Amino acid sequence: MADSTSHDSVMNRWLLKRLHNKIGAPNVRVAVGDGAPFPADARDAVATVRIDGWRTLASLALNPEIGFGEGYRDGRIEVEGDLQQLLDAVLEAMPERTEESWHARLFSRWLDWLQANTPRGSARNIHHHYDLGSDFYKLWLDSKLVYTCAYFPEPGATLEQAQAAKMDYVCRKIRLQAGERVVEAGCGWGALALHMAGHYGARVRAFNISHEQILVARDRAKREGLEKLVEFVEDDYRNITGQYDAFVSVGMLEHLGFENYETLGDVIHRTIGDSGRGLLHFIGRNQPHAFSPWIRKRIFPGAFAPSLAQSLAVLEPWNFSVLDVENLRLHYARTLEVWLERFERAWDSVVRMFGAEFARAWRLYLAGSIAAFRAGNLQLFQIVFAGAQSRQIPWTRADIYSAEPDAERKLWMRAIS
Amino acid sequence: MADSTSHDSVMNRWLLKRLHNKIGAPNVRVAVGDGAPFPADARDAVATVRIDGWRTLASLALNPEIGFGEGYRDGRIEVEGDLQQLLDAVLEAMPERTEESWHARLFSRWLDWLQANTPRGSARNIHHHYDLGSDFYKLWLDSKLVYTCAYFPEPGATLEQAQAAKMDYVCRKIRLQAGERVVEAGCGWGALALHMAGHYGARVRAFNISHEQILVARDRAKREGLEKLVEFVEDDYRNITGQYDAFVSVGMLEHLGFENYETLGDVIHRTIGDSGRGLLHFIGRNQPHAFSPWIRKRIFPGAFAPSLAQSLAVLEPWNFSVLDVENLRLHYARTLEVWLERFERAWDSVVRMFGAEFARAWRLYLAGSIAAFRAGNLQLFQIVFAGAQSRQIPWTRADIYSAEPDAERKLWMRAIS
Repeated sequence: MADSTSHDSVMNRWLLKRLHNKIGAPNVRVAVGDGAPFPADARDAVATVRIDGWRTLASLALNPEIGFGEGYRDGRIEVEGDLQQLLDAVLEAMPERTEESWHARLFSRWLDWLQANTPRGSARNIHHHYDLGSDFYKLWLDSKLVYTCAYFPEPGATLEQAQAAKMDYVCRKIRLQAGERVVEAGCGWGALALHMAGHYGARVRAFNISHEQILVARDRAKREGLEKLVEFVEDDYRNITGQYDAFVSVGMLEHLGFENYETLGDVIHRTIGDSGRGLLHFIGRNQPHAFSPWIRKRIFPGAFAPSLAQSLAVLEPWNFSVLDVENLRLHYARTLEVWLERFERAWDSVVRMFGAEFARAWRLYLAGSIAAFRAGNLQLFQIVFAGAQSRQIPWTRADIYSAEPDAERKLWMRAIS
Repeated sequence: MADSTSHDSVMNRWLLKRLHNKIGAPNVRVAVGDGAPFPADARDAVATVRIDGWRTLASLALNPEIGFGEGYRDGRIEVEGDLQQLLDAVLEAMPERTEESWHARLFSRWLDWLQANTPRGSARNIHHHYDLGSDFYKLWLDSKLVYTCAYFPEPGATLEQAQAAKMDYVCRKIRLQAGERVVEAGCGWGALALHMAGHYGARVRAFNISHEQILVARDRAKREGLEKLVEFVEDDYRNITGQYDAFVSVGMLEHLGFENYETLGDVIHRTIGDSGRGLLHFIGRNQPHAFSPWIRKRIFPGAFAPSLAQSLAVLEPWNFSVLDVENLRLHYARTLEVWLERFERAWDSVVRMFGAEFARAWRLYLAGSIAAFRAGNLQLFQIVFAGAQSRQIPWTRADIYSAEPDAERKLWMRAIS
């Protein structure tokens, strides 16, 4: 290992101690080269982080998250023991409001500018992640390629069952009826749009700026004989046109940036007016915070997870009524656990496709996300809302949990007047 | 009627037309004295508002809400036809963002100052409404005197059933367990605190600054043999002390004023820390707005209904996770309908107790609230939240709607680790 000559220096020990304290003194050990781990007395530590030398150590001290992400990605940092337990321990211990260094703040601002979600910027950001090719995602997502938080009615459900249950849950929450018109903003590989058409008889227009995903989605619609009910449009959400009964967006708000919430609100109001209804499903936080800079740099350029109050900047200006909010963060942790298991099984294929650095970065992204949803650094919100003049407000939520939805579907929508 | 000489004047006609337009041109007619109603061609109007003379008409033009409230209260305004239909029609038609006159704005500011919820101000404000005497509220509330939105599992449930269901719903939503410590802020006549102790075996400390209500609540605890489990404390929520597993507040946030949300958040965090959980139940709005000035003047001094985003100013600074939000506004409309029916049946008793002006004011308050919840001017939010370190996050909401909660109660709380 490089720089191992300096691993026992006073400077290294001082930096290791500082770093360990900065991340909340979790029950993990840190070491430089083959030097002695710090803290020396942490015998039951869940893992040891081994850093190749003082340069990497200095980058960690300056910006722990970026330093760790970059170092782990290219192998300058190795984890002895369980990576997941390490990340869980650090996220449990690390104070949410860790004071950011000037370097971290500057880097975050620079990312804001570099990855701004202008129409062109969004296209670039989305291309970076979603156009890696369906073959890659097929290695570790479910068979329908649903790349958002699933809903496990029982913790033991399979991922396939849980993704189908999630799509049904969304349809039930908006009390979707046959023949209704739905617009979907950010449709991935089209699974939800096809579910709405195939299982509920809805007519769906689904928007996405990922070229790869749209091609797959159109092909599916053809194969499933749903081309007449579902139209996949390769375009930005800002360009959505038409009138609809309902608006849904599952896993897109994260890619908008707060500065575009007002625009999204405009789009929603333009398409469903004061009488429609809708659902937003997105990664959020307990309080306003910047998104992880390393995830933005390597995984999701332009990403932002709002607090619940921030997310309401989409809905309140248009007088929409929030009917229902649910936090499904434990379900995202479980979803990610299954993804990571499958990802690890497909490790060699991933390395062949994109190389070892990519594979290590994505392992860290998946394991880090599990830790974040477990510890509560990230939340998953589903918001159901209705226009100010909507006369289709459900009486209770009991129907969503009814065992025989079809028999009762007629009762779901209760007109007030 | 006074001033009827001028009822056909050009000025009156001009003011009537202006007023009618200002309130959104609803399908109602307005008239001065025994003059011809405006609009003349509105044959299927739901009701006619008859105004005694130009002074009252001018007050309506200056500030429609205060003008109507005060005029209806003291009989200068009479409604020919159905008051409820009139209010429904006006609230449906009236634009939410009616531009307020200088008079309305000034009046609202003056109320802000006059009714500020300082500890002394709150005591005065609460005394005004809640210390009218239990005998008055017994005339038209349910047998347990629950003076907040009920929960009707079926629209045809009785008010008694619906208030019991609401209290149970609150307990289920926070997954209350036997032996847990609960603090309640603003406990009314104590029904919820006694329900939690009597049906769930919880140990409850319940705070209220209404002297009348606390006396009744203590008496009940004694009669029900629950004094050992429930302590009723006559004190301001700001003075709550102790450590608890859960915090609940049903119908108190409306009395705080936005300037005190931070303080409430401090109190909640002080009492349940990062590991507890809680529920807030309150009247809200789709977007930020001042509370009805007439309701503040005559019925609820110091009242304020926040938007959902505003209400989160209580929770986000302390990193609480919002787990569940439900909008029960249709249930408040139904609750108020039953209250108003009973109030009308007790009319003569109310007049004997407090006089005709009081009875008319309260009729208008109840009917106006029904119209506001129906039209969506007001919402009713229940927020369930948990501390950032809480390890008792429910897996799904299905248990809340399970028919046999007791058998499943053990399954409700799912520890993550």
